[in-house]
Amino acid sequence: MRVEEALCMVGGAGETSYATNSRLQEKAILETKTIIEEAIGAIYMTLLPERMVAADLGCSSGPNTLLVASEVIQVVAEQCRRTGRRPPDLQFFLNDLPANDFNNIFRSLEWFEKKVDEKKFLPYYIVGLPGSFYGRLFPPQTVHFFHSSYCLMWLPQIPEGLESKTGALSDERNIYIGETSPSWVVNLYKEEFKNSFSNFLKFRHEELVPGGQMVYLWGLLQEALHDMVLEGLVEREKLCSFKIPMYAPTMEEVKAVIQKGGLFDIGRAHSFESSWDPFDDSSDDFVLDNLGSSANVAKCIRAVVEPIICRHFGEGIIDELFSRYAKNVARHLLKGKAKHLVLVFALKKRG
Amino acid sequence: MRVEEALCMVGGAGETSYATNSRLQEKAILETKTIIEEAIGAIYMTLLPERMVAADLGCSSGPNTLLVASEVIQVVAEQCRRTGRRPPDLQFFLNDLPANDFNNIFRSLEWFEKKVDEKKFLPYYIVGLPGSFYGRLFPPQTVHFFHSSYCLMWLPQIPEGLESKTGALSDERNIYIGETSPSWVVNLYKEEFKNSFSNFLKFRHEELVPGGQMVYLWGLLQEALHDMVLEGLVEREKLCSFKIPMYAPTMEEVKAVIQKGGLFDIGRAHSFESSWDPFDDSSDDFVLDNLGSSANVAKCIRAVVEPIICRHFGEGIIDELFSRYAKNVARHLLKGKAKHLVLVFALKKRG
Repeated sequence: MRVEEALCMVGGAGETSYATNSRLQEKAILETKTIIEEAIGAIYMTLLPERMVAADLGCSSGPNTLLVASEVIQVVAEQCRRTGRRPPDLQFFLNDLPANDFNNIFRSLEWFEKKVDEKKFLPYYIVGLPGSFYGRLFPPQTVHFFHSSYCLMWLPQIPEGLESKTGALSDERNIYIGETSPSWVVNLYKEEFKNSFSNFLKFRHEELVPGGQMVYLWGLLQEALHDMVLEGLVEREKLCSFKIPMYAPTMEEVKAVIQKGGLFDIGRAHSFESSWDPFDDSSDDFVLDNLGSSANVAKCIRAVVEPIICRHFGEGIIDELFSRYAKNVARHLLKGKAKHLVLVFALKKRG
Repeated sequence: MRVEEALCMVGGAGETSYATNSRLQEKAILETKTIIEEAIGAIYMTLLPERMVAADLGCSSGPNTLLVASEVIQVVAEQCRRTGRRPPDLQFFLNDLPANDFNNIFRSLEWFEKKVDEKKFLPYYIVGLPGSFYGRLFPPQTVHFFHSSYCLMWLPQIPEGLESKTGALSDERNIYIGETSPSWVVNLYKEEFKNSFSNFLKFRHEELVPGGQMVYLWGLLQEALHDMVLEGLVEREKLCSFKIPMYAPTMEEVKAVIQKGGLFDIGRAHSFESSWDPFDDSSDDFVLDNLGSSANVAKCIRAVVEPIICRHFGEGIIDELFSRYAKNVARHLLKGKAKHLVLVFALKKRG
């Protein structure tokens, strides 16, 4: 149990990709803190459960993996202190694909328990749950609260019809879904989004207890990927066969799927813009240090997409690709801030 | 999700330490199959739960980590088929210390699901739970069945009084608890065993639902460690400060702690002898190939104690230590088989 050693590797101050990557998600989570508080408060005060189950879907592995857990623990503890009620036992499930680095998370638990010093007041149990959230993850009606952040834009697969129409796709413009994509490609992605998101809603509905809620953030990485892939620093052939299982729906498209399913009431739905530079906390549109800021943006995008790029193109191109990407971003930032859109939803289980 | 690649590393046929190590535990689990079947059968038919929670405490990481899970799944499925009842949803918790390789387990789940083809008939969910079983692991009354194999001989710590009496301990004979240990050292270990095992029983009692059961195996590694450490291939000083948090109680000592606590009824308590050579399936006392067999024994012991030896003495001595150990075992095997004692218990929650 050399938790301390493991933590040295992971924490490693602000220069590592973990830390850089963490800031963006941390900011988004902090921006939605009020919504999480509202949801947890409503669940707790309506159901007064003796035992409460919460889950973070797509938890990843890094310093802010446990941020939502710590927030949920603190909100419930606060509620109980305020109302003088005996706190529930809280089981917190961290979910991600089986390839996620769960070891890293588990080895930081000792440190987490020192930081979140509530265990004696509110007994909590952190658990790892490997699997895709596009499938079933829990027995029926066993979860009180779901959270998901920056994950739902990843589709479970490349749309099925896409591969079979290879002829029409032998063109590097079709690796991303953007303004120049043919409409039939856009439609295939849109269909895949509708199907997979409907499934997601159906499974979560089955898993939530009556009175349960769900809060999730939809971060739209599309534009950044678009730019990066356009660099074209790789063989034309490889590029033509590179597809990304990602789709950025509009607020209206998301609402339409939720409403059509009829399984959830939308408690909250709003969007905000967030700078791509995770260290940029100002709200204006002025970039003070375009070189520094572009390096931050590049690191942040790299932390997200490196695995998928490496798997297809090999590790060889990565450093060069992101160094060029940073230069492009720096040029772009002279004109103003690079921002991305975040959609936030709070859903209440119906029926 | 490159589950296949991960599996290549792990599976790697019979020569790897994983495979070698797995055989011993697999044999023990198979020997207790009937007991597990009885326990699961009784729990299921008494409680008829819609949702069933089972846990393997000290699951480790290797090809047989999921052996108990697969057995529990198959026994429950079989029960339901026989009685024509709708199968429960089964949540299976794999518990070990946070330093355990959970990534390795999770990456083999896809393969596991192909092998244990019951998911459609009996929906099951495999979960990782990091933490010490000498502490609380679950909310109260949420578990139906506990299993533990070859883990309880590890104490949570070196007995507290031992370190403070260093003067009397500057002697390499005291690193293990054996016939030549002074009685006050034996007593310190015995006390530590009684306390930690009582705690273990208390926590499991709180966590089990009424009607829940527990089956565990106690493998006694003591003698093998004894021999190995006596090799004395290391500096006298290092050896003097090396303590192993392990205690091998007798059947009577275990029973006494269970009965004194009054929390469990003993359903079954028996012991069997098992050859140290995991590939030796014969029941006689004759060793056909003492060199081959001693190599198997050495590999098997090494897979268990290498981490604790390395942490104290460094990696440098390991190969030499176990090569000499294998020679010693070979000499020993000329006289007959090396066997170790396994204690098996099935406990029913009282009250």
